[in-house]
Amino acid sequence: MKILVMNCGSSSIKYQLFNMDSNNWSVMAKGGVEKVGLKGSFLKHEKENGEKVLLEGEIMDHATGIDYILGVMTSERHGCIKSLEEIDAVGHRVVHGGETFNSSVFITDEVITKMKDCIELAPLHNPPNLKGIFAISSLLPHVPQVGVFDTAFHQTMPKHAYMYAIPNSLYKKYGVRRYGFHGTSHRYVSKRAAEILNEDYANLRIISCHLGNGASIAAIMGGKSIDTSMGFTPLEGLMMGTRSGDLDVGAVTYIMEKEMIGTKSASVLFNKHSGMLGVTGISSDMREIESAIEKGDELAKIGMEMYTYRVKKYIGSYAAAMGGVDVVIFTGGVGENGDDTRASICQGLEFIGVEVDPAKNKKLRSKEAVISKDGAKVKVMVVPTNEELVIAQDTMQIVEELVRK
Amino acid sequence: MKILVMNCGSSSIKYQLFNMDSNNWSVMAKGGVEKVGLKGSFLKHEKENGEKVLLEGEIMDHATGIDYILGVMTSERHGCIKSLEEIDAVGHRVVHGGETFNSSVFITDEVITKMKDCIELAPLHNPPNLKGIFAISSLLPHVPQVGVFDTAFHQTMPKHAYMYAIPNSLYKKYGVRRYGFHGTSHRYVSKRAAEILNEDYANLRIISCHLGNGASIAAIMGGKSIDTSMGFTPLEGLMMGTRSGDLDVGAVTYIMEKEMIGTKSASVLFNKHSGMLGVTGISSDMREIESAIEKGDELAKIGMEMYTYRVKKYIGSYAAAMGGVDVVIFTGGVGENGDDTRASICQGLEFIGVEVDPAKNKKLRSKEAVISKDGAKVKVMVVPTNEELVIAQDTMQIVEELVRK
Repeated sequence: MKILVMNCGSSSIKYQLFNMDSNNWSVMAKGGVEKVGLKGSFLKHEKENGEKVLLEGEIMDHATGIDYILGVMTSERHGCIKSLEEIDAVGHRVVHGGETFNSSVFITDEVITKMKDCIELAPLHNPPNLKGIFAISSLLPHVPQVGVFDTAFHQTMPKHAYMYAIPNSLYKKYGVRRYGFHGTSHRYVSKRAAEILNEDYANLRIISCHLGNGASIAAIMGGKSIDTSMGFTPLEGLMMGTRSGDLDVGAVTYIMEKEMIGTKSASVLFNKHSGMLGVTGISSDMREIESAIEKGDELAKIGMEMYTYRVKKYIGSYAAAMGGVDVVIFTGGVGENGDDTRASICQGLEFIGVEVDPAKNKKLRSKEAVISKDGAKVKVMVVPTNEELVIAQDTMQIVEELVRK
Repeated sequence: MKILVMNCGSSSIKYQLFNMDSNNWSVMAKGGVEKVGLKGSFLKHEKENGEKVLLEGEIMDHATGIDYILGVMTSERHGCIKSLEEIDAVGHRVVHGGETFNSSVFITDEVITKMKDCIELAPLHNPPNLKGIFAISSLLPHVPQVGVFDTAFHQTMPKHAYMYAIPNSLYKKYGVRRYGFHGTSHRYVSKRAAEILNEDYANLRIISCHLGNGASIAAIMGGKSIDTSMGFTPLEGLMMGTRSGDLDVGAVTYIMEKEMIGTKSASVLFNKHSGMLGVTGISSDMREIESAIEKGDELAKIGMEMYTYRVKKYIGSYAAAMGGVDVVIFTGGVGENGDDTRASICQGLEFIGVEVDPAKNKKLRSKEAVISKDGAKVKVMVVPTNEELVIAQDTMQIVEELVRK
């Protein structure tokens, strides 16, 4: 079975073509179009053997971009399939599923209508997701499509975790509440951790730290997300590459007044110019921060201390929310590769049973591993995330269920 | 030694006259002027024997109000002192000391200049505080005055706890950082807890929960505040009577756009119409919320669950910040009186050693007590706060040091 996974952003289209053969998943091709609708758009395509192709060309919209991708996949020179008919299903990453979608769904006209209702909640993200769905509908009209939502996994949060302490009317009118994001990643790594540990997922209290350029942390109890740090938008919670994370609302209005800026500029300020980049003035990339620290940069050092301190506090907070914790997982670019960052985060958490084994942690990069000391109460793990695989798996499962009916 | 403690708000003036006699503090009189500069202003005065007097009259400004207070204190009918010359010193509560004041100070012209520099940070609170100081200067020109800052105790926070993940220029230009408030209360109850336990304050890791209409929580390690939930303003952190506490900045700009409101209205919305009042639509008063819960009100129940859940998470977070916790203190109106609230907050924290003894906790109101189980790892305590006493004590100490020099 061949499944195409699509992730359409406002000016980018990422894809992976999966093949599932006797319970074994492999990636036949992957790549992405960048600068859709902008000058200098191009397609980067990677074949199964790792060979990479860069194709430049004017790609004015998502439909053209997807047409281009499908063309390359079936081309004689760079292709991996003979005909588009080999594609059995397409799975789409959809950012916001609101309160409507608590799991992945087969896309019908009714589902599309409901997805459109969610645009209000993610005006920048959901429209390109929909464009991808429409493009596939017209290019591959007979292929079933599935939507996998970034918010769905967190729909199990109890009311006291997802409600904000603002007038209830604002929740009712606009749906302002915590939704959480990175759900596909938190779901994947937490389930995978249980498999690796050979423990019953339903019996574990897991804190999963997805630390990438965007960063979020989730409390997962008995396989269900009960709290997460991103909120109504992906701005809340941890300090990120360019996002402020948690910040006094009083400081927000103060800065807006002092700088004489409106909500649009404020949103850009706190989403694009804050976080690690804002504090250090150096970069949003942790590797550059680390080398600045080595050169003795004071702000880089503070930035890193803020970053790890905030993750540490969230771990404490979510342990409290679950009455304890059994597993702490690190994933995402920083979580998978930042051994020093992981060590700093866990330092001082011995009182709740978190004890990292320096030998196991040091230099461990992007590999599934338990990095806690043998016999420690809490298993600390690195689990590389794979959202595309989850989308492919969900898609297959849903399509197979449909066939069975 | 007689010390007058003043707390001047924008339309109110609170006062207490303390007498210190052979290391024993007593309150000779206390009260307040309400609706200063508004219609229907009045003075409520309470004598040492508990007798209360209500005096109506037009009180147009703080100077008039303080003159009125001094008049009542020396009046034949309601007075407690014969002459104003009996007042040895005046201590003032000052809300914001910025980064300038890390402890209480003797007020000089230089100090006043520096206080004026802090007005920017607390434009609503510091000006009336200064009015009180000026009024005393003119009415009691020879009496020494001391300023006690709500922010001072938290000036020991490390940089990684007080910096926000926003452009560093905003910290430099406007001083936007975490300052924290309720410092006088956190200082008093944490020190008092060590005394009650007969432990060395310098060796304790204390989490102090000041839960009143405003609410904040502090992590105090070795007698020093290392983190606190209120931030640049008193809006951040816990859910409060009418304040939202922590809230996604993305939700803030979204709501401002949807409701078409500016920063002033947003500030009113999140400071005055949110929190427990906003969620429940009933009241900001926990007693009314509790009776609504008894009547089966669903929103009141959710509001209470949100409230306790957030305090619980902060306790976990601050325990993580200190590598563990030895003492958890409840103070403030809700903290001192809300036995069910205390129990709900502590429930599920057994894994860090917090175990409340239901028998000790039940019905305990406004009394110093240890409410944890005998032998529990963490001492959970109720310590009624007394900010006025701290101001009086600081004032006496500073004045005595001056005399000694």
